[in-house]
Amino acid sequence: MQELEERIQSEGTVKAGNVLKVDAFLNHQCDVRLFDRMGSAWAAHFAGKHITKILTIEASGIGIACVAAQHFGNVPVVFAKKAQSINLDGDQYTTTVYSFTKQKEFPVIVAKKYLNAGDHVLLIDDFLANGKALRGLIDLCEAAGATVEGIGIAVEKGFQGGGDALRAEGYDVDSLAIVESMNPETGEITFRH
Amino acid sequence: MQELEERIQSEGTVKAGNVLKVDAFLNHQCDVRLFDRMGSAWAAHFAGKHITKILTIEASGIGIACVAAQHFGNVPVVFAKKAQSINLDGDQYTTTVYSFTKQKEFPVIVAKKYLNAGDHVLLIDDFLANGKALRGLIDLCEAAGATVEGIGIAVEKGFQGGGDALRAEGYDVDSLAIVESMNPETGEITFRH
Repeated sequence: MQELEERIQSEGTVKAGNVLKVDAFLNHQCDVRLFDRMGSAWAAHFAGKHITKILTIEASGIGIACVAAQHFGNVPVVFAKKAQSINLDGDQYTTTVYSFTKQKEFPVIVAKKYLNAGDHVLLIDDFLANGKALRGLIDLCEAAGATVEGIGIAVEKGFQGGGDALRAEGYDVDSLAIVESMNPETGEITFRH
Repeated sequence: MQELEERIQSEGTVKAGNVLKVDAFLNHQCDVRLFDRMGSAWAAHFAGKHITKILTIEASGIGIACVAAQHFGNVPVVFAKKAQSINLDGDQYTTTVYSFTKQKEFPVIVAKKYLNAGDHVLLIDDFLANGKALRGLIDLCEAAGATVEGIGIAVEKGFQGGGDALRAEGYDVDSLAIVESMNPETGEITFRH
């Protein structure tokens, strides 16, 4: 998506440790007009799929998913929650996700009643790097017996390999911008096309 | 807002400790069609105000704020972040919010570059009870020199007093449903009109 690449080039900043900051428009300040066009792009890509629900993870995915849902017939958006502790009360599906940012594992939960065997799910998130967060969402779908129809990502850091591994397993991953390389010293960012 | 009251009546559940669960449509599973009509209601209420930015707090406010922003000329949405620790790097405004749910104070931050003296801000959140989270957002606006033009809330628990205190101070608080009383034993919920 050319517009997204241009925004990353002009407003993104590259930090040491494979960090790409795009908080001017994606995940701190949110450009909802851009989100709308991202939703439109995913709707075009996944046009052949019957999507009944969008699943994302708090917090940065929520705004993108809610605006994008308007392009999928206003299907319900469910956001998985990062829990402080595992609470096995039987009413929720639980998995764990390792966060490189926070250098620890944390539990991620979704209430059982909001993810079901009949659901055809589109996963949405702002970033895809190593794919740990998405693996967590896929785990939750598998636990529920729901079908993962596709994965819509705003920014994939292609050089970290998570997206290619998912594609190799057959997942339909539509990343609107794939960063091929980025240099924290020069700030240079190149994209895969 | 009659539709919201009806959804709370039919799908909400009252728990001990003044807890009203509305996660079927508001803050775990999200009904984006409802969010759109909520945005429309706030736009009607705040029609005389010049809003340049919407400020909310992660996580539950984000989806509502992003959809509502479409009714305010697609103004930027900024979500304040709950931080693990206070990091006084000078680039962010910081305040603390006491969470009754988690029984502790936590830091809330916003990057200085996304909240400015020229901003006319609409605060949006899913819930208003004692008003602690909103006080935090107001603190952040004051630190930035931004003007709080109004406060849009989905569900106010009127009996907890936070909304009335803000109104008494002159804030224009538009809560789309105000719960006057709720009973965890009978499940009965009454609204203020």
